[in-house]
This record gives sequence, C-alpha cells and structure tokens, in this order.
Amino acid sequence: MAQNKIVTLAHGGGGTASAELTEKVFMPALSNPILESLSDGALFDPPKNGRLAFSTDSFVIDPIFFPGGDIGSLAVHGTVNDIAVCGGIPKYLSAGFVIEEGFLIDDLERIASSMGEAAKKCGVAVVTGDTKVVPRGKVDRLFINTSGIGFVPEGVNISPENVKEGDAVIISGSIGDHGMAVLTKRKGLEFDTEILSDSQPLNALIEKILKADPGIKMMRDPTRGGLAATLCEIAKSSGNGITINETELPINENVRSVCEILGLDPLHVANEGKLVAFVLPKNAGMVLEAMKSHPAGKDSAIIGTVGGPEAGRVEMKTSFIGNRIIEPLVGDQLPRIC
Amino acid sequence: MAQNKIVTLAHGGGGTASAELTEKVFMPALSNPILESLSDGALFDPPKNGRLAFSTDSFVIDPIFFPGGDIGSLAVHGTVNDIAVCGGIPKYLSAGFVIEEGFLIDDLERIASSMGEAAKKCGVAVVTGDTKVVPRGKVDRLFINTSGIGFVPEGVNISPENVKEGDAVIISGSIGDHGMAVLTKRKGLEFDTEILSDSQPLNALIEKILKADPGIKMMRDPTRGGLAATLCEIAKSSGNGITINETELPINENVRSVCEILGLDPLHVANEGKLVAFVLPKNAGMVLEAMKSHPAGKDSAIIGTVGGPEAGRVEMKTSFIGNRIIEPLVGDQLPRIC
Repeated sequence: MAQNKIVTLAHGGGGTASAELTEKVFMPALSNPILESLSDGALFDPPKNGRLAFSTDSFVIDPIFFPGGDIGSLAVHGTVNDIAVCGGIPKYLSAGFVIEEGFLIDDLERIASSMGEAAKKCGVAVVTGDTKVVPRGKVDRLFINTSGIGFVPEGVNISPENVKEGDAVIISGSIGDHGMAVLTKRKGLEFDTEILSDSQPLNALIEKILKADPGIKMMRDPTRGGLAATLCEIAKSSGNGITINETELPINENVRSVCEILGLDPLHVANEGKLVAFVLPKNAGMVLEAMKSHPAGKDSAIIGTVGGPEAGRVEMKTSFIGNRIIEPLVGDQLPRIC
Repeated sequence: MAQNKIVTLAHGGGGTASAELTEKVFMPALSNPILESLSDGALFDPPKNGRLAFSTDSFVIDPIFFPGGDIGSLAVHGTVNDIAVCGGIPKYLSAGFVIEEGFLIDDLERIASSMGEAAKKCGVAVVTGDTKVVPRGKVDRLFINTSGIGFVPEGVNISPENVKEGDAVIISGSIGDHGMAVLTKRKGLEFDTEILSDSQPLNALIEKILKADPGIKMMRDPTRGGLAATLCEIAKSSGNGITINETELPINENVRSVCEILGLDPLHVANEGKLVAFVLPKNAGMVLEAMKSHPAGKDSAIIGTVGGPEAGRVEMKTSFIGNRIIEPLVGDQLPRIC
C-alpha cells in the first residue's frame, strides 16, 4: 500500500478503503480459512467434551515497539496466556484495532505481521476482527483488543479454591523484565545490558505442566501489579496465607540494579511471560522438572509455600532479617504497561 | 463510589483501586455467576451440537450518550447482532474498557448499567472483562470492545454463497436512523421531532426468521457504510447483481428531511438495529410476515431482488426515472458513528 502511506479516517469507514486495509494489511499477515470468509462472525466446531474458556484484554502499551516485543505480539501472548492459565488450550483469537488517523501503514504492517507470527507460534488463529480509525488526538497511536477462546480438557480444574496449606508456590522464571524493559525504553535510559521484555506465550509450557500434574491446582500470569498483586489476590480468594522466600526469587541482575536505582520493587513490576503455579507438595519436584525442561520455564523456582500469615496475607522471608508483609499497590507504578 | 468521583490512573493499574472499580461499578451492573469467579478467563460448557460463532467490535462512538442509546447498550447490541446475523444464538460477551483519566464515575456507572440492561434484554451474559485507564488526552473519554460467542444450531447455514438470482431482498425497517441521530446530536441540530437511534438487538427477530425459514440464505446488519455498503459487499461476494426499488425503502420522514438538507444519502447512513435478509422467492411472504410480527421488524419490507445488473453491481430503480448505480463510499460520511 505504498501509494497511501498513512491510515486515514476513510480506512475506518466500512467502505472500500476499509476493505482495502483488511485485504492488503491484515489478511496477508493473519490469513487462515476462517478469517478469509470475511463474515460478521467466525464459525467453527465446538470441542466434543470439556469446557470452553473465554478471555479478553485491551492493549494500550506505550511505546508500541519496545525491547523484546511490540503491541502486536504482546496482544497475542496476553490473551493466549490468560486462557492457558485457566487450563485452556488456546484456539481462536479476535483482534479489534483502534487506530489514530495518520498512523503509518508501514508500522501497521509490522504490527500485523508480528501478530501473525506470534499466533503461528502459539498455534492459534485470528479468526475475526474489527478496525476503527479515529481523528488525530482522539487515541494515542494504536490500541488493540484481543479476545480468545480455548478448549479446557475434561478433568482440568484450575481454581483458587483448590489452594490449601502446604502447597508449593512455583514461579516460571525471572520477575519484572517486561515492566523494566518498557520503563527504560520510555524514559530513554541506557544501560550496558539492554533489558528485554519477557513477552512470550506460556501455552506450550502449561501443556508440559498439565502432563506432569493433570490435577494442578492453580495457575495465573502475574502481569499488571506484578507478582505481589497476583499472590495477594490468590491469598484472598483462596482464604490462605502465603509465605515466599526472597532468596529464591529469580530476578535478572540488570532488572535488580535498575529497580534499586529507581526505587522500584520487582515484586510490583509487570511480567508478560511468567506464571505462578500452586502445586501439591508431593508433586512440586515433578512439576518443577517439567517446567525447567521448557525454554519458557528454564529458570523456574519454588519460591514459597501456602501457609504462614493469617488468611489473605502474603509474607516474604527477607534475605536480611525477619519477614516483610507484601501488599498490592493501590494503582500501578507506571501506566500503559500493557 | 461517591468519595472518588473520577476515574484515575490507579483504577487501571491492576491493584486495589482496579479491584474496587470492578467490585463497585462493573459487578453490580453486569453480575452473573461466571463473571463473579473473577478469574482470567470465563469457563462454560460448549453446545452439544451445531457450531460456534465468534465476533468482535470496538465502539468509539462520539458522543457516548446519544438520542436512543449510549455506548454501553450499543456495544452489547452491536456484537449480539453480528452473531445473530450469522445464525448464532448469542450467549456470552466479553467487555474491554479503555477509559480516559478523569472520566466521571457517575457516567461509567450509567454506561455499565445500560450494558447490563441491554445484556439482560438480549439474553446474554457479560462473562469476562478488562479495564485499562490511560492518561488525559490519550483516548477520547471511553472506548469499549465487546466480543461475543454464540451457538449456531445444526442445519443453519447463513452465507453469501447461498444467494441466487431471483431471491427476495428484505429489510427489517427504516434506514439511516442511527447515523442521523448521532449526527444531529453531534452538530447540535434541533428539529421538531428528535431523531432516535435504532440501536436494538436483532436476535429475537432472527429467531422468528429462522423458525419461519430455517434455510434462510443470508442475513447481515447494515451498520457502518449503510445499506449501500452491505448490498454491494453481498453482490460482490455472492457473484450476483442486485436490484432494489427506491419506492419500497422504508425511511422515516425526519431522517429523509435532514438527509435532504445536509445532502446525505440515507443508503449510506449507518443503522444499528436493522438487518437485510436474502430469501427464496417462495418463502419471502412467510418470512416478511414473521418479521412484521416482531417489534424490531414491524416496518419490514421487500425492497428488491437478486439479479438485474452484472455480477457484483447494485442498481436502484428510482422513484422518478431510470436506474441509479449504488456504490459503496470510499470512507464514511462521518467518523466515529459506532
């Protein structure tokens, strides 16, 4: 679409320009037989048994290109991961674009192509979509909503209600990478080693976990609000206390340094490719081994156990002395992290 | 939430303020057992047979409150209708909110409540959601994405490929109401009779149509781009010409007058509660009767037939003399109509 280098209001009008954007930008990047029907809705067969999982997420990240990813791949990974931590095998995604008039077609092609590659890697298909264009100044560049459908196999039952005293708490790798990658890019900070976002799909890792322990109790991906928010939420909804050990927390050296300089706590910094799992103590070793055998879980670690403080509270045994209460933030350390 | 009258960035941070917004604004308005699980994804049983329909739409309408509706009910009707015209019985919706910092909590409550009422009326449940808040000036007030899942009964097969020469073309009522309601509100134009948007659900009307003619060939709701864009798209994708009769087109008198004053063509103006159906000629009378028996279809009319001009073209027999070629617009007459 070289003759038409920016997105115009006409591209969102539902007329021939809209059709052109779909045909020339989105279809080549995302193409699959269901999407090609170009009807108002995508049609496909339901699973023969088990349940359906359905999730949605809007992505408003700033900047849209960041070290380790972009808004397109992030929008795929985010919804794939939300479905996968429910025990669902992600299958179908929708994509809703809200684009600012004047957005570069080149950038849109790059983002669509990144979505397409991410979808392929995750084994999902973007089967239905929508594009709106709004006048300059009415949206900051580009927002993407993805919603997704997954098939949850019979017998899989992920729920905070399963979490009981004594369960092991496992994290799938280092914390804080995504938030610090976005923050350093946004602030123009430069360090010897660039911090990369951990934006990645977790569905293949979760398939390994479910194979090792089909009765896995609870999983969640600690995104906005970081690991602290996720642990506090699970402590509250399961009615248990949780204790974690600071010395066991995997944190990349450069993330740790930048957090120290800026006075941030990595426990509150967003992740986009990590999960925390709650496992029966007798299965913990087996699950940990399965997680470490997958690239997305190679730095997995048992970081704590259920029990300790009163119900609904999270405590951390610090590396120095005594315990620290972990609480969720009221808001977030930085807006537009995802 | 009287103590906290505007939405702040903290409400989108995934921490305690986010949880408060969910608990105090969204849950009371949208509550249902699946949503109440507050997990990353909603879980439910698939249909025993038939297929699934999946659709998405982002709503960026300006103004967010307009004569005859608001962005909340519109976001429910829009996705419900996209699923229903595929032959799906709409079941589950997701809702993704992107809110500008400073947005009034009162307005958000009003919109959430309007969504809840619309969902109830449509017989669907909002089962999963997401809220993002962006700094002032980074989005214009509020955008909502809804995605939806419907169950398509066995034997129902809606597709432009079914459309053949001789089929009757039926519209479910007057055209152009939504677009002209938004335009007059936005421009502050005042007329003796206020023009109301036709924003309404079509799923109950479509149930009546499917009961009358389970082999109904094709349906679509002519939203952005109006009836002209929809007919041209179906002419193209079905490989047929289509002829419509100007004298048969239902158009409300005030819509016709304002269109004349402003030089707009009602065929290009958006609808949000109308559908166009393609029916075997022998079933047309029966389908028309079924449509007229439902309030959402009381002004239904047979407006044309398949055939006439060459494949892919739409022609209108005018009330004066001769035929007029109907073409889709390149863009739309006005941005942010939905």
